[in-house]
Amino acid sequence: MLATTIHGPRDIRVEEVPDPTIKRPTDAIVRVVAGCVCGSDLWPYRGENPIQAGATIGHECIGVVEEVGGDVQQFRPGDFVIVPFCHCDNTCAHCEAGVQSACDNLSMTTSGQGELARVGQADGSLVAVDGGAPDAALVPSLLALTDVMPTGWHAAVSAGVAKGGSVVVVGDGAVGLCGVLAASVMGAETIIAMSRHEDRQRLATDFGATHVVAERDRAGAKAVKEITGGVGADAVLECVGTDQSMGTAFAVARPGATVGFVGVPHGVELPVGKMFQKNVALRGGIAPVRRYLPELLELVLDGRIDPGRVFDLTLPLADAPEAYRAMDERRAIKVLLQP
Amino acid sequence: MLATTIHGPRDIRVEEVPDPTIKRPTDAIVRVVAGCVCGSDLWPYRGENPIQAGATIGHECIGVVEEVGGDVQQFRPGDFVIVPFCHCDNTCAHCEAGVQSACDNLSMTTSGQGELARVGQADGSLVAVDGGAPDAALVPSLLALTDVMPTGWHAAVSAGVAKGGSVVVVGDGAVGLCGVLAASVMGAETIIAMSRHEDRQRLATDFGATHVVAERDRAGAKAVKEITGGVGADAVLECVGTDQSMGTAFAVARPGATVGFVGVPHGVELPVGKMFQKNVALRGGIAPVRRYLPELLELVLDGRIDPGRVFDLTLPLADAPEAYRAMDERRAIKVLLQP
Repeated sequence: MLATTIHGPRDIRVEEVPDPTIKRPTDAIVRVVAGCVCGSDLWPYRGENPIQAGATIGHECIGVVEEVGGDVQQFRPGDFVIVPFCHCDNTCAHCEAGVQSACDNLSMTTSGQGELARVGQADGSLVAVDGGAPDAALVPSLLALTDVMPTGWHAAVSAGVAKGGSVVVVGDGAVGLCGVLAASVMGAETIIAMSRHEDRQRLATDFGATHVVAERDRAGAKAVKEITGGVGADAVLECVGTDQSMGTAFAVARPGATVGFVGVPHGVELPVGKMFQKNVALRGGIAPVRRYLPELLELVLDGRIDPGRVFDLTLPLADAPEAYRAMDERRAIKVLLQP
Repeated sequence: MLATTIHGPRDIRVEEVPDPTIKRPTDAIVRVVAGCVCGSDLWPYRGENPIQAGATIGHECIGVVEEVGGDVQQFRPGDFVIVPFCHCDNTCAHCEAGVQSACDNLSMTTSGQGELARVGQADGSLVAVDGGAPDAALVPSLLALTDVMPTGWHAAVSAGVAKGGSVVVVGDGAVGLCGVLAASVMGAETIIAMSRHEDRQRLATDFGATHVVAERDRAGAKAVKEITGGVGADAVLECVGTDQSMGTAFAVARPGATVGFVGVPHGVELPVGKMFQKNVALRGGIAPVRRYLPELLELVLDGRIDPGRVFDLTLPLADAPEAYRAMDERRAIKVLLQP
């Protein structure tokens, strides 16, 4: 099959690789209808994560079941499915506690930017879209459900976003924007998006942000403090993963608040003394996508949320290298790839 | 008045110092009936915190109101009161959110191991014991309400201890033991106290611990894992504040759990990558004592909890140096001082 591979920093290729096959009787193979590039794919792209040269890349896709292993009972070839980026059995103690991202049988999609993808624990992982192939207009929002929307949602859940409360979202990437959308659905009254990019500010506002703060660091914290009447935010969503963004998150949190974090931490040193002094909590991690999928799918199908708007560029799979460049240079928020 | 002072590492004296006076119209002066030494007093005693030579020390006391400032309306001389170690107005935005330890008008008791103590924001801070001077047998438990019991309670609240759940308490000092007691009152089913000292293990069991683990670090984590059926604990109370104890806390937490921390952090580097990977949260800090006082006082007066049992040595105020030695050498869990 044709798939996106990474060979080194900024060396993305689209090439023929062996088709994924059923390795365990609980696996399924999905023919990809739409895949995309994740902000976290930029870490290896920029050389900040180790790279296994020639490995396929891409953990987000939706598509049609092509083949199932002998133990898969809930799905059959032809089903249109959403593939959570982390696969889980949905029956172990951790899944039952709502932490499907720590499943005893965890695995991940590894060729979502390709023509075919293997899904582990298919019965536990996949969610079918009733009625088969959806309207093309729905594809971006369904694709957003594989990672970026549940991850923004997880940030909001972790931060304890509440009806009527105040929320700050640090990070204006696709996840941060989905965090704004989540906070809006959850009924937050004040939603402050920290963003310096006009196109992202606009989308944040469309998604429900009541305020935009373009300043960073101290100036940004000061602006948030003013908006929140000198108190600070009830809940903060950290959607980047750098030491700077984490510092901003703690700076804008009111005493007793929670920082919900979903940006994969890179070089973060947590300010434990400040957390203690201000009783500011930190909660989050890899999103348990499968946990949120039924609820979020319903919101999409009901037309209540449209997270697919984070895709502002669509390219054929063959142009994956350009997709990475566009996101790296911030010319695009998120790029959808069509095999 | 006579008060305990610190002049340098391991240099504790009891000497004459000027009486505290009303400095603000919201202050009160309390004549100390009982004070005590806190585990956190051992940090400066051991030279691990900066010391202002000759300063009074001690932030826990109960006693009788001696004098009130012109703005104090709820208390008058003669009232028997519990003095939360952190003073708060109990009306600012942070107090109203239940974070009295981040009050806009925060101050602390600074001569609790003395004959008299100044209390800031008396109306917001103090809680009266109805009926005046209590029975002598109640004094230790009432004194425990000024810090150590609400701090153990805060660890349990922060960790999200729930009815029927599993709890690990890291630290067998007075706060850790009160954490065990809190978890028991809250209805936890499995309460694992990590302790290597027989006297503390006994008290932990009396307070409701269902299991005692004497091992530390990896061996301790392994023992907890076995007790919790391979899953880890739902809630972990970190009641020490060292990097080692924090590491143990995260090692025994199940994915999705919360570590409630109340040990003042010293040299702690939080394992942010592991927190992210396992979705283990950290929540806690300086206990908002005033928030919990009414509820805890009722539990004490109803005879449902007896946190005063953490005092296993009572000395006259003049013997404060011996009180510090006894706690430093772990000959005593906690020492009550009588002026």
